[in-house]
Amino acid sequence: MIKPRLFRGFRDYPPEEMLFRERLIERVRQVFRRYGFVPLETPAIEYVDVLLGKYGSDGEKLIYRLAYKDGNTLALRYDLTVPLARFYAMNYTRLPLPFRRYQVEKVWRAEHAQMTRGRFREFYQCDVDVVGAPPPIPDAELISLISDALSDIGFNRFIIKVSHRKFLPEFLRYAGIEAPSELDVARVIDKLDKLGKERVILELEKLGLSARQIGKLFDILDISGEPDEVIERLLSLLGEDVSDICGEMRRFFGMVFSFGVPKGRLVFDLSLMRGLDYYTGIVFEAYLPDLPDVGSLAAGGRYDNLVGLFMNRSVPATGTTIGIDRILTAGRRLGIMLKDKNVAKVFFALFDKEFVDYVLSIVSRLRREGVPVELGGKLCSIKENIQTAEKKGYRYLLIAGGDEKRKGVVAVRDLKTREQKALTVSELVKWGKEICG
Amino acid sequence: MIKPRLFRGFRDYPPEEMLFRERLIERVRQVFRRYGFVPLETPAIEYVDVLLGKYGSDGEKLIYRLAYKDGNTLALRYDLTVPLARFYAMNYTRLPLPFRRYQVEKVWRAEHAQMTRGRFREFYQCDVDVVGAPPPIPDAELISLISDALSDIGFNRFIIKVSHRKFLPEFLRYAGIEAPSELDVARVIDKLDKLGKERVILELEKLGLSARQIGKLFDILDISGEPDEVIERLLSLLGEDVSDICGEMRRFFGMVFSFGVPKGRLVFDLSLMRGLDYYTGIVFEAYLPDLPDVGSLAAGGRYDNLVGLFMNRSVPATGTTIGIDRILTAGRRLGIMLKDKNVAKVFFALFDKEFVDYVLSIVSRLRREGVPVELGGKLCSIKENIQTAEKKGYRYLLIAGGDEKRKGVVAVRDLKTREQKALTVSELVKWGKEICG
Repeated sequence: MIKPRLFRGFRDYPPEEMLFRERLIERVRQVFRRYGFVPLETPAIEYVDVLLGKYGSDGEKLIYRLAYKDGNTLALRYDLTVPLARFYAMNYTRLPLPFRRYQVEKVWRAEHAQMTRGRFREFYQCDVDVVGAPPPIPDAELISLISDALSDIGFNRFIIKVSHRKFLPEFLRYAGIEAPSELDVARVIDKLDKLGKERVILELEKLGLSARQIGKLFDILDISGEPDEVIERLLSLLGEDVSDICGEMRRFFGMVFSFGVPKGRLVFDLSLMRGLDYYTGIVFEAYLPDLPDVGSLAAGGRYDNLVGLFMNRSVPATGTTIGIDRILTAGRRLGIMLKDKNVAKVFFALFDKEFVDYVLSIVSRLRREGVPVELGGKLCSIKENIQTAEKKGYRYLLIAGGDEKRKGVVAVRDLKTREQKALTVSELVKWGKEICG
Repeated sequence: MIKPRLFRGFRDYPPEEMLFRERLIERVRQVFRRYGFVPLETPAIEYVDVLLGKYGSDGEKLIYRLAYKDGNTLALRYDLTVPLARFYAMNYTRLPLPFRRYQVEKVWRAEHAQMTRGRFREFYQCDVDVVGAPPPIPDAELISLISDALSDIGFNRFIIKVSHRKFLPEFLRYAGIEAPSELDVARVIDKLDKLGKERVILELEKLGLSARQIGKLFDILDISGEPDEVIERLLSLLGEDVSDICGEMRRFFGMVFSFGVPKGRLVFDLSLMRGLDYYTGIVFEAYLPDLPDVGSLAAGGRYDNLVGLFMNRSVPATGTTIGIDRILTAGRRLGIMLKDKNVAKVFFALFDKEFVDYVLSIVSRLRREGVPVELGGKLCSIKENIQTAEKKGYRYLLIAGGDEKRKGVVAVRDLKTREQKALTVSELVKWGKEICG
């Protein structure tokens, strides 16, 4: 006997989760399609040097290599963005710009698994990207898409934070901060939500920043309000240096609102820091104010340098990830997504071999009419059929034996109320369609 | 610059294929759901000893191992049946029998890639299995499911060959064949369709079979006709030894026809040999008589010994694979599945920054009404918008500038006929819904 087991950090998606997940992914796909995006899939296995293009040494540790030939050639994909860039570079001559694709596939990361905190080594990414269009039209479109997707799924209250990657160097210059690196400061600022201002100030001091530098930095980070007000304040503090970025942000916000995204859903948050070595323009992140611990439900931004890794020219790009797993977690906690054990709502008993034909022909009729039915797997007593149906979580048991066949009916037993009624086959089809909604 | 490239045997699924594939998979899933099957997903990465359970030394060569720790621990799944058995063994206490699941995921095999012949190292498997129910009810249900799925997809003429794994030893005994192994003889018989009888006889002679043995073997293999006639002939030739199997086959065929599968779709084919070391009962295979070279579109059978590898007791099981790739190939060749380049049917031009707001609000309205729209990625001339829309394969270009905004309309240009008409926004929504079907 082989001991059945899974490697740490990996999990099965059992039916009660998958039913849910399939519905969610299909709903998100429908939003992608409405926005005119087209699907792409790429191989799980690629050359290591292709996959590491973006991540360099960080990726080295997190990538699952294959023991193939020299053992250094192939690995499992780490995300869906690098494969998109590689795909675009290989096919650009036949892909009219902009290339707008969605991709919903699994990725693998050899991270420290924290399964209780929902951190796994294998997980879905659900990405949508626009390659080959400058800001801010596609960026604004992605915000509208995130807003539509989260509303469609059933979330009422969510916030999309927005900022621009190119602000940070200007902020640092304004505050007179040269060393330490931009990245170190950004990492600390990124913790503002989690740690609060006081602890962030302590950490900035640890990095060697003076009180005056920190003060000036917060003159900027503390700015909040309507996008237009924030832009005015930034222009008055930083002047010329940020006028291009501010112009882009102004056009961007105008478009987001023209798309009909409610004003209350957008926050211009200057402390939003995302993947500094990667993003090059507008960045964004959606979260639920009611469940801040779930983290971002969707996040992304502009990355104009990635595709160029694989081509002799630079190609602008922007995209977002929809966090399927976090959406599922949040949806369950808010009670907007309920667990189902079955697709079918009815279980058809098999108990008398004389009338198997009668049962099978009705099961077949129901299914052809679009009513899902589970048929009992073997001939057994009515009692045993009831037990199986109950264990499987079915509310209704259908029974058809000699009496029913003579009368041309089927008995429908409600396993909850224990009531039973007889329906003709056409009545049964109608009833079946009703209970399936 | 990193050279963008793929490893041999791997491929991208570009949008024009994916659009198709997504529709096909969704349609097949709907059939699975109607039959009361529930979805499961399992990790791509599992322990090597778990994955090799079924395949032993054959699998050794074909499995992609990961370079992880000692390099011998983990590998990529090779199929979806072993993971199902492993999942069942780990969860059986909470899974009421029978457990009926479908799983549509990719698998990886380090085979010799023959890409021109459609043989890849990564491909989808689309499996549906019933664990924990004896023959022949679920076996018959699977035949009905295959028949419904292929009809729903649009195939009119297909044949499902059926046989039983336990016939072969009886046939060999009847023909007085002891050595060579069952497996060797089965491999030759399996080529009957491809090579024809004469060449198969030559190959059987090479295995050392006498003319008399071969003659007696063909007394059986030549039997054909209605299931009942075949069963009668078998009973008269082989007697008692096959009476149990023949009884099972008779009940099985009765049920298949009760499910409403047309008689002409079933062939009781005694030369059908499938995975001898694996199957234990009824086996089947669906193919298109008009496209025999495509191979089987669906295939499967009963395997009562697999789940037991992971448990202390034996658990009966039966299942089928739906061959998504072959169905796509066949569907295209028969013209029942057409390629689409886009989800959306309309491309909305962006050409005048004064009226971007007007355009965005209409795009948004169309999308919310369920009409997919691709929005131009940047402001550019009408001419350039037309070129982009044409390159992308769009039939209709929508235009809205100052004139249109004043009149509250949108210009719809048919890029094929070059006709243009003006529609109010509500007329546009109605028109959009119509062209999207």
